[in-house]
Amino acid sequence: MKTNLITIGDEILIGQIIDTNSAWMATELNQMGAEVEEILSIPDDLRAIKKALSRGFAQADLLLMTGGLGPTKDDITKKAIAEYFGVNLTFHQPTYERIQKLFERWGRSTTEAHRQQCFMPENAELLYNKMGTAPGMLFEKGHKILVSMPGVPYEMQYIMEKHVLPRIKKQNNNSFAIAHRTILTVGEGESRIASRIEAIEDELPENIKLAYLPGLGRVRLRLSARGKNPDLLATALNEQVSRIQATIPELIFGYEKTSLEEAIGALLMKHEKTISTAESCTGGYLAHIITSVPGSSRYFQGSVVAYANEVKQRELQVKAKTLEEQGAVSEPTVREMVKGALEKFQTDLAVAISGIAGPDGGTPEKPVGTIWIAVGDRENTETLLLNAGKDRVKNIQYTAVYALDQVRKFVQKHYETDS
Amino acid sequence: MKTNLITIGDEILIGQIIDTNSAWMATELNQMGAEVEEILSIPDDLRAIKKALSRGFAQADLLLMTGGLGPTKDDITKKAIAEYFGVNLTFHQPTYERIQKLFERWGRSTTEAHRQQCFMPENAELLYNKMGTAPGMLFEKGHKILVSMPGVPYEMQYIMEKHVLPRIKKQNNNSFAIAHRTILTVGEGESRIASRIEAIEDELPENIKLAYLPGLGRVRLRLSARGKNPDLLATALNEQVSRIQATIPELIFGYEKTSLEEAIGALLMKHEKTISTAESCTGGYLAHIITSVPGSSRYFQGSVVAYANEVKQRELQVKAKTLEEQGAVSEPTVREMVKGALEKFQTDLAVAISGIAGPDGGTPEKPVGTIWIAVGDRENTETLLLNAGKDRVKNIQYTAVYALDQVRKFVQKHYETDS
Repeated sequence: MKTNLITIGDEILIGQIIDTNSAWMATELNQMGAEVEEILSIPDDLRAIKKALSRGFAQADLLLMTGGLGPTKDDITKKAIAEYFGVNLTFHQPTYERIQKLFERWGRSTTEAHRQQCFMPENAELLYNKMGTAPGMLFEKGHKILVSMPGVPYEMQYIMEKHVLPRIKKQNNNSFAIAHRTILTVGEGESRIASRIEAIEDELPENIKLAYLPGLGRVRLRLSARGKNPDLLATALNEQVSRIQATIPELIFGYEKTSLEEAIGALLMKHEKTISTAESCTGGYLAHIITSVPGSSRYFQGSVVAYANEVKQRELQVKAKTLEEQGAVSEPTVREMVKGALEKFQTDLAVAISGIAGPDGGTPEKPVGTIWIAVGDRENTETLLLNAGKDRVKNIQYTAVYALDQVRKFVQKHYETDS
Repeated sequence: MKTNLITIGDEILIGQIIDTNSAWMATELNQMGAEVEEILSIPDDLRAIKKALSRGFAQADLLLMTGGLGPTKDDITKKAIAEYFGVNLTFHQPTYERIQKLFERWGRSTTEAHRQQCFMPENAELLYNKMGTAPGMLFEKGHKILVSMPGVPYEMQYIMEKHVLPRIKKQNNNSFAIAHRTILTVGEGESRIASRIEAIEDELPENIKLAYLPGLGRVRLRLSARGKNPDLLATALNEQVSRIQATIPELIFGYEKTSLEEAIGALLMKHEKTISTAESCTGGYLAHIITSVPGSSRYFQGSVVAYANEVKQRELQVKAKTLEEQGAVSEPTVREMVKGALEKFQTDLAVAISGIAGPDGGTPEKPVGTIWIAVGDRENTETLLLNAGKDRVKNIQYTAVYALDQVRKFVQKHYETDS
């Protein structure tokens, strides 16, 4: 079912709010095999709305519209719909009585604006909205359908879940299915991954598509399949996932919606290991990322942000000699920081980071972006040198991703190979 | 200047990512007086892209397109643009050499995909992209302009700021002037600020508009003026800024684009004070925010993330008795954490945070969102109790904002009143 989403509201066109409704709707629709072909955002403008309706009905079977149903003067979606269909707006007594009752319960009285809100295009099928005052409206035009909903996210979601999605599901069961699998990778760029799995990509069946979704230090590989039989699609996707898994196993940290920090947390819990961090240039960002996972207190004990060299010496027992001879940004320093953190927090593992995040502080031998990472336990320490860029915030985020990846590799190397 | 934004990418149409680029672009364009009339998201599909180009050129003067410029096979924006204009793709040697040099510096080699990425529509004016491998492309069609940029937010932002916005500004200067002033506030909600400055807002001259731009714990007040004479606009705006400043002085931490953490850094440097943090539930986020400011090493010494109670005792000398009788989330605990951090890091000031970020861990007396903040020096300590929501990540961010605001208030109260 070809679907268009239309978002109405001046606040979107001036960038005041981010349209999160469309992503929510697209996710739900996609899972049902309804293909979203276009997402359009337009202002609260009569002409623009009518034009969007013409265009939408010409190219899609289902139009889902949000916004512009409020009680204020700039909300003119209903007027535009009525003009588009050439129908009148008629007063809907039950909606008015419902609003009056709601306001009575809140101890407030309704205004003329609320009465105006109860005028509906006469060809609308009203969709009950438990979460707010404005009902959804469904219109049929031949075999095509238009649904207009409020823009408030939980109101839209209620109407979608109670009315719209069930109707689509019923209609779809007769036609086709769509399925997705997402493979999550870290530590390698989009194009290198592409060249490693080129043969697999070239041999993909006609009905399966592969998309690369890059993020900082990470790339998601999304396989999408279309067909008639959901079971066959799942089998076909699994086969491709297995082929990719066998080709780039060391890059994959998870599947579907897991975050890297969640995957690391799960890995630490699986091996019953606790962790602490000792951070210089990342300034606490790695600890923040680790602790953004609910329940991280089960494996995370604490962190020292050792920005000043004296703090590195006093709190992490980095030797003055090491700092003097090798510098704060050096492999020996991060090795000593790991030891210091293991001791201080009494954890099984520790991660240490020291580098030059920029924009200043670089030297010819150690330019901005020179960053040392170490991960270790009481027996082993593994180190990594990053040559990052010049952007401070990006360097910090990038370093945290690579530090987490180093933890993953350390655990795999030292705790998973002896089986 | 009528502007259309076109976002290309299957990942948007299936709801896998939220289109934040459009909101960023719309905000920037709006400030320059360029009116965004439509935001359109379409899949990585040749026909859809060409159709969007026809439609866009028919209704707008400026088309800004993002996405689909990566090195992988699903990225077909360039092919679509070349077909739309009826031109060839030609190999661009300088771009290829730049990519090769970049990869050499990273100690990696380029792939065939990178070479393919260097084929450009022959009518493209290339826009240098410091942040990534794909340059932006500018096309002229009569008096109309199309710009195609990568979808990675910081790459798009770089190209917009370096190339696109300056060009729009230049073009605009010939017709009318637009000027903005932004007042930055913290610690009070949008509607309470609105009611305090209602009289000023009601009396604004016809050509000046006030917009409220709310963020987490912060609200930006943007005054925009339109007219012919830039000097008159500046004077008129200054007058309104002064009126607002006189009405809500204690809420204002800065003007224009200063971040709260930059403002706090400047304040600490002005008073020659150093600072450290002791964090429990924020897990290093406050230290991260403070150290995201270049040059923060001049006032920031370090932080302890004391997630476990033992760490609070051992590292921050919080008394076992306090933790037992008052709990880790309590005013006495954060007071002792401040003392511990002052001692440990030998700073003039320290900030301590302990709370329940959620989603679990709440009790009837201390529900999720109960968060204590303390700021102190060797003589005084000021505390604040937050009753935040249930969302972990939002709570962490919100707490960091209020902690920074507490530092601001502490410095103003104790170091600025004795003049």
